[in-house]
Amino acid sequence: MAIPMISVVGKSNTGKTTLLEKLVAELKRRGYRVATVKHDTHGFDIDRPGKDSWRHARAGSDVVIISGPNRLAMIEKREKEITLNEIADRVTNVDIVLTEGYKRGDRPKIEVSRHEKGSELLCTEDELIAIAADQPFDMNVPQFGLDDAAGLVDLIEEKFLANPF
Amino acid sequence: MAIPMISVVGKSNTGKTTLLEKLVAELKRRGYRVATVKHDTHGFDIDRPGKDSWRHARAGSDVVIISGPNRLAMIEKREKEITLNEIADRVTNVDIVLTEGYKRGDRPKIEVSRHEKGSELLCTEDELIAIAADQPFDMNVPQFGLDDAAGLVDLIEEKFLANPF
Repeated sequence: MAIPMISVVGKSNTGKTTLLEKLVAELKRRGYRVATVKHDTHGFDIDRPGKDSWRHARAGSDVVIISGPNRLAMIEKREKEITLNEIADRVTNVDIVLTEGYKRGDRPKIEVSRHEKGSELLCTEDELIAIAADQPFDMNVPQFGLDDAAGLVDLIEEKFLANPF
Repeated sequence: MAIPMISVVGKSNTGKTTLLEKLVAELKRRGYRVATVKHDTHGFDIDRPGKDSWRHARAGSDVVIISGPNRLAMIEKREKEITLNEIADRVTNVDIVLTEGYKRGDRPKIEVSRHEKGSELLCTEDELIAIAADQPFDMNVPQFGLDDAAGLVDLIEEKFLANPF
């Protein structure tokens, strides 16, 4: 069975990362293995100049792996961005994948909205499984407070996770 | 056919990373796709506090992925260190894998040696495909200068890479 993948989307500075942290913590509390995906549309430097792994990358390595006793990192050069489907193919040992961003992706979405950033949503009703907001919306979508990770995870469990415990 | 994996080993501060950089650059110049593995026995923090991906990890994500237009990073929590065989299973789209370290691994090795760090080697003759050093060894192993990436890559090509060009 495919691993469920849910996208947490919203305008800038509405608190997507904060909500995602809370969802991850709540899912972990309930015993799930969780992967998260950060969509970094501007590119990124994950490592620090001078470190050996950075020197490997700078010398031209297509794939740099750093393996430690409790952590494994792989950094790959890409000609084009990996798709959510390709990510789903690679991540096999978790119960759920949460993405931060990917508002134009085709995965079920939770939109974060904050009154001070406006009262329009990025997504349409049929794209959303939930809204996390400090304001109400006249839409047929379950709505939660910005801090209500437990409520959101109840919904996620019900819709996407066969509870194995 | 399995992708060849060669370990660059040596005592501390003999110049393993520097040699590895030169080997990567030379292999890239010859058109190969290269992966490198840095063995970080003390553990590592690849990301910086405050960044979104760091916040995902701190919240408990088992796998954190950062996807940009030209780069993909995956950081996995592990209960125990991944083996070289498991790394080999995961890295599929390159011609060769070079590891920095893994002196106790079972892969063919190049040992880096520098007179000022002593004249003993870590490896035995049968473990080594080459020595890169500023001193001679009375051993039946091909020996190269510390800067001779071209010579070493000639040997690597001859022994491990069917040249597809």
